[in-house]
Amino acid sequence: MRIVVVGGMAAGATAAQFARKTDRKAEITIIGKEPHPIYSKCGLPYALQGRIPTFERLVEFDEHWFRQFHIDLRLGTEVMSIDSSTRTVTACDLRGGSEGVIPYDSLVLATGASPWMPPIEGAYVEPGTLKEGVHLIRTIADAKRLSGNAWRDSRAVIVGGGLIGMEFAEALTVRGVHVTIVELQPELLLASLDEDMAQAARQIIEKSRIPIYTGHLAVRINGERRSESIVIEEAASGHRMELPADIVLISTGTRANTEIAVKAGCALGTTGQIKVNSRCETSVPGIWAAGDCTEYVDIITGAPVAVGMGTVATRQGRTAGTNAAGGRSELPPGILGTRVTMAFGMHLAGVGPTESQLRKAGIEPVVGRFVGSTLPDYIPGGQEITVKVLAHPDNGRILGAQIVGTSRVHQRINAFAVAILAKMTLEQFSKLETAYAPPIAPTLDAITLACDVALMKMRRR
Amino acid sequence: MRIVVVGGMAAGATAAQFARKTDRKAEITIIGKEPHPIYSKCGLPYALQGRIPTFERLVEFDEHWFRQFHIDLRLGTEVMSIDSSTRTVTACDLRGGSEGVIPYDSLVLATGASPWMPPIEGAYVEPGTLKEGVHLIRTIADAKRLSGNAWRDSRAVIVGGGLIGMEFAEALTVRGVHVTIVELQPELLLASLDEDMAQAARQIIEKSRIPIYTGHLAVRINGERRSESIVIEEAASGHRMELPADIVLISTGTRANTEIAVKAGCALGTTGQIKVNSRCETSVPGIWAAGDCTEYVDIITGAPVAVGMGTVATRQGRTAGTNAAGGRSELPPGILGTRVTMAFGMHLAGVGPTESQLRKAGIEPVVGRFVGSTLPDYIPGGQEITVKVLAHPDNGRILGAQIVGTSRVHQRINAFAVAILAKMTLEQFSKLETAYAPPIAPTLDAITLACDVALMKMRRR
Repeated sequence: MRIVVVGGMAAGATAAQFARKTDRKAEITIIGKEPHPIYSKCGLPYALQGRIPTFERLVEFDEHWFRQFHIDLRLGTEVMSIDSSTRTVTACDLRGGSEGVIPYDSLVLATGASPWMPPIEGAYVEPGTLKEGVHLIRTIADAKRLSGNAWRDSRAVIVGGGLIGMEFAEALTVRGVHVTIVELQPELLLASLDEDMAQAARQIIEKSRIPIYTGHLAVRINGERRSESIVIEEAASGHRMELPADIVLISTGTRANTEIAVKAGCALGTTGQIKVNSRCETSVPGIWAAGDCTEYVDIITGAPVAVGMGTVATRQGRTAGTNAAGGRSELPPGILGTRVTMAFGMHLAGVGPTESQLRKAGIEPVVGRFVGSTLPDYIPGGQEITVKVLAHPDNGRILGAQIVGTSRVHQRINAFAVAILAKMTLEQFSKLETAYAPPIAPTLDAITLACDVALMKMRRR
Repeated sequence: MRIVVVGGMAAGATAAQFARKTDRKAEITIIGKEPHPIYSKCGLPYALQGRIPTFERLVEFDEHWFRQFHIDLRLGTEVMSIDSSTRTVTACDLRGGSEGVIPYDSLVLATGASPWMPPIEGAYVEPGTLKEGVHLIRTIADAKRLSGNAWRDSRAVIVGGGLIGMEFAEALTVRGVHVTIVELQPELLLASLDEDMAQAARQIIEKSRIPIYTGHLAVRINGERRSESIVIEEAASGHRMELPADIVLISTGTRANTEIAVKAGCALGTTGQIKVNSRCETSVPGIWAAGDCTEYVDIITGAPVAVGMGTVATRQGRTAGTNAAGGRSELPPGILGTRVTMAFGMHLAGVGPTESQLRKAGIEPVVGRFVGSTLPDYIPGGQEITVKVLAHPDNGRILGAQIVGTSRVHQRINAFAVAILAKMTLEQFSKLETAYAPPIAPTLDAITLACDVALMKMRRR
């Protein structure tokens, strides 16, 4: 059995690891474009801010580890084409330039995604070469280039106020850079939170006095060979202004790397990413796919989603690798989309579709929102915590939840993730015996009280 | 509608509150023995250690609050008898001594529990009067008496190493008291954790260099009118030793206050506490019961359990009060027994029966145990966390879980609490998309990895 994995990051390396667990004798090859073995891309902002001492520390399994498990790890190597009829892959060593043909019985595509550059005038000095000070970040190399520019008291504009934009904004602030955030949407973080919850998050972030321009788009980056300033435009009014910008960091999402998959005949889904089923099979026999290059259905709406999260990549990698090696592994019936982060003292967590995503799917959810405290009132140290729960109007089934606060937010979302996976109702969840002790949480937790609020609304109808 | 609630603490006050929510016009009376309105008994160790500034701060709703909701709160008053045929209660004002008869349509018994004194020679100077320095703790008055004795550099022996014993041991340590813990069982905390997990907990506690004598019972308290030392005996060998003890704090569990319930004809269950159904009804029509005086079935084993936890008291109070006022409220089919605490840097959480409790109920569980980290390996600051999950051997249904560590333990147990309530299997839970971000949790969390371990064991059989 010959298994070839294209891509060596979270999905690919996990696939190879589980292929090995499934078949101790298979020939397993990973072909990775980057010079590093699997590392945490999610960790880049924390290495940039110095909390992780070096970028190389992000590597999760080193080359020795792969040798130990007899996995042939070819770094700095790119797959140029796949021939699914002869089951061969043509790969090129990016350092030496030599090409080779590698036969496979099973192929796992884990080609990931690349940052998306919105149409901003003056971002490039020539096609493919970003202006000095302009940054797209996906790799250690990208992050090191940014780190080299992140001087104390330099001025950075982050274009894109999503999870990753916020994480890099905080990292640059820790480095002494003066950061401004520009976001086209009317509020930050709208891919993760509904507008009311995003407003609660922003109120916490604003305590750090970070200038935030929501409803603004980036129009032009000024400067000859390096960025000097950026022109932004208020979407509603067309009003333009210029912000000084030694650094422009673009964080406006990604696009899946699907070129070779398309060439190999793998069908793409409606999001433009590789379509997989619950076994991570593509439309081409013998080819599996996992991670940021794929789309999979949302567990609630059934709509295909391009999640692009490490959580999902790891789990898909496990399923793809196990199945590619002849084992049996199945994904849950859909993606929960559990998401968490913290930046500028603001802690955020979400799971399931947002209220607006549900509406788009034709579900008008019952909403329960509760502003409580992380601790009982009688003990000092409690922090405000806002919990929002979304449920189906017909049967009270929990469909999504969001939590914002300044501490003890993240693990609370896992309780909702289990509830969604278990198809639990508000009624059942509201009776949960939650963790209680005075220095830990109140007798009745905000997670169940939000359900009580939603239940009352349901009963009133 | 006249509703009388006997007992004004967590269960009683909550019952009155929900009776009021259910019936805006009912005459509601609370008869409470203590001089304070509802306060957090669980908060007593934190007031003792000074984290909560005064004991009075533990009061959750003051007398004004009850007046505002037209609830007649009679403090310092004891119910002497109940006549369920005429539906009347005879109560005595403990301060004035005057007796009165109060008619009711619905009665809620929330009489709580009292500390249990094991047979230790020399604990009392005369029946009902504890020797100076000897303490049983249940009320603010008890805790104040202890606080008055807790001098810096005095020596205390805690008899009983359960949750509450540990919390008071820590509180006294914060006050500068030299604490020794004596526990009859072979390990601390065995009502909450299995022995392997309790050992993990003890290893953390022992870093604080607290002397701990497990497998020892307290035999005799020496001293004329006040405690000077305590004689303890190793259960296995009979070997005795004497420990200096200015303070002896007995924390060996409680016994329900069932006297008036029995007189009123309410049936007790096999644990000796008041039997209630899922509506909190006792065997006597018109009488409900809630909180530490009751027993209710364990959700997994179906065996009656006397939980004695605030979490359950509050939820039962809600059900009893709602139903007593003519509303409809039902408890979940059983008690989850979610429990958490922290002491001496050790964080502990549990839900569902322990392995040994399951065995007693005839279930030989599949066990998954995983020692992981709270954070990904590549980011500094991760702490060791041990997760144990128990599942049914036939179908993999999750039956219980325990977590021990030094941080980020408590909220993780709620995910298992939901899973048990939802009758989820290891297979389903192991696929959960858990909260992941580098400074928050690893991609694959110890809570799902423990399930993977259990699954592997199941498959190997």
